Amino acid sequence: MNMIARTMRDEKVTLAHGGGGKAMRDLIDTVFTSVFAPESREDQARLSEAALQEPGARLAFTTDSFVVDPVEFPGGDIGKIAVCGTVNDLAVGGARPLWLSAAFIIEEGTEVALLRRIVASMKAEADKAGVKIVTGDTKVVGRGMADKVFVTTAGVGVIPPGRNLLAENIRAGDVVLVNGKLGDHGAAILAARGDMALSSEVTSDCAGLGHLVEAVLAAAPGVRAARDATRGGVASVLNELAEAAGLSIEIDETNLPLRKEVKGMCEILGLDPLYLANEGTLALVVPEDQAEAALAAMRALPEGRDACVIGKVLDGTPGRVTMRTLFGGARIVDMLVGEQLPRIC
Amino acid sequence: MNMIARTMRDEKVTLAHGGGGKAMRDLIDTVFTSVFAPESREDQARLSEAALQEPGARLAFTTDSFVVDPVEFPGGDIGKIAVCGTVNDLAVGGARPLWLSAAFIIEEGTEVALLRRIVASMKAEADKAGVKIVTGDTKVVGRGMADKVFVTTAGVGVIPPGRNLLAENIRAGDVVLVNGKLGDHGAAILAARGDMALSSEVTSDCAGLGHLVEAVLAAAPGVRAARDATRGGVASVLNELAEAAGLSIEIDETNLPLRKEVKGMCEILGLDPLYLANEGTLALVVPEDQAEAALAAMRALPEGRDACVIGKVLDGTPGRVTMRTLFGGARIVDMLVGEQLPRIC
Repeated sequence: MNMIARTMRDEKVTLAHGGGGKAMRDLIDTVFTSVFAPESREDQARLSEAALQEPGARLAFTTDSFVVDPVEFPGGDIGKIAVCGTVNDLAVGGARPLWLSAAFIIEEGTEVALLRRIVASMKAEADKAGVKIVTGDTKVVGRGMADKVFVTTAGVGVIPPGRNLLAENIRAGDVVLVNGKLGDHGAAILAARGDMALSSEVTSDCAGLGHLVEAVLAAAPGVRAARDATRGGVASVLNELAEAAGLSIEIDETNLPLRKEVKGMCEILGLDPLYLANEGTLALVVPEDQAEAALAAMRALPEGRDACVIGKVLDGTPGRVTMRTLFGGARIVDMLVGEQLPRIC
Repeated sequence: MNMIARTMRDEKVTLAHGGGGKAMRDLIDTVFTSVFAPESREDQARLSEAALQEPGARLAFTTDSFVVDPVEFPGGDIGKIAVCGTVNDLAVGGARPLWLSAAFIIEEGTEVALLRRIVASMKAEADKAGVKIVTGDTKVVGRGMADKVFVTTAGVGVIPPGRNLLAENIRAGDVVLVNGKLGDHGAAILAARGDMALSSEVTSDCAGLGHLVEAVLAAAPGVRAARDATRGGVASVLNELAEAAGLSIEIDETNLPLRKEVKGMCEILGLDPLYLANEGTLALVVPEDQAEAALAAMRALPEGRDACVIGKVLDGTPGRVTMRTLFGGARIVDMLVGEQLPRIC
């Protein structure tokens, strides 16, 4: 107990906290496991789950590193995004998210108070999503060798028997939906970074979408495919979907759900909101006759309040995404070329 | 295909490679998925495994971030260590390692050739261990915001029904074994770092231990517990085992398997080899009557060639680890206090 007092007193992470000895254990105990409360101190989580043993159930497994700058931003922080991002990667594959791992790379000198806020935020978000953070790791690197803290989560979930969301399932005539406004996360990060002298009320859309996907699948079991529109924005996931399906997608500019502030920021900076990152927004492709049911299911939830149709699938040039513009013309919506906003997630 | 040529031609990673668009996809396609060959392009792996559906089987889940400096060292590189480390975390819990995720945080300006070497090394090590790298992520951060490349792996395996390696199972009279020489990894990294002006023939012990653990469990099914002695060395894992078991452990200095070069380096630098990191060395606790069988099983494999008994479990002060020294005295072997070698893994 003396050690805890001694090593945590100054409230900055030191290299000793990464050394594998007492200081590391104190950091892990006081900051991480005291909050995440894993069932044992073994290095690996050991997990049982009846759903996994159903015949035909599959396991879903995904990972993402999070390097967002700044690590705290309006509407979230790197911890929240690290939980939501991985929960959403599982959910859009039709999996029920169950367990997460969390690995932290921490720069020497980082305030312990910041770590505590990040960890609290992860715990809150995991609880909301109904997942458990069951295993983890911490590494400490020297000053200037990393930028404050990077978080890598991996997630495991179960895909119930019979569920198979897959871009290859998409058919001409299907409808493309989103659950909410586009580009809020990218816009919030841009404003939070401060080097644009932008002031903005926009907050990140960062949210876990596991419950929303479950609700949609219950109401519209014919859903073909879903993707979360993170880096590269909605434009990139629509291109991925069109390419994998070998069909084309046409969206309608008049239908794009955009906040006035985001629209304004994009106009000032010459950005295209279709390429702005989202962290709680997904694109869903559904058969036309189930679109209304899917929309209703989403709109019943806070993270789907602004759900709407943005386009449809056509038997056109395979892999092509086009947009009917406000002025009645049409333009190609390509994948993002080059960099847009670095370190948005 | 033009894009691939264009973005890979200069052979350095740029921020555009992290932006979520075409350049990112090219990097992922040409450097990562072309080698790891995941079954689909979906963001999450979807996995079936009969062993998971056996009644009583449990899933094991673990993660580690790897930040070793230098990223290439005698006997391995950050990719090899990232695969072996996670395989070993699963194996020492009694799990058969099955699937890995791999997330890369890459500093802008990193040579693509270095990434290719790391990826090739991961693939080779995964093949050797019988695991598949099924999902991954890449992020790019600005120059100076990370040190070349950090790799985070998470691993999933299956613990067959009835297996329960657990420090709480340890009993007084049990025997403590290791599978090989101590401290090689720490010594190799120290020498490779170059700032000690040490030249050394020592190479890292970095190795996957999944097959070895399976062989030991087949030969000595009574194995109580196992730990891989990475950061903090053998001293730290023995302390963890003694503490969790509520017993004491006594090791014998004459029995410690040390290379002459490692011993010499430790003498020159005033380091204790018990605290040097290993990346292919585990401590096993077995009932005395199964020790010979466990040793024989290990010695039949290259990564267990130097297996030996290093100590025994006593009904002494709970959590205490002591060492009988060469001169017949005894000293306490505490957990590592403070930092020893930063960025060894």
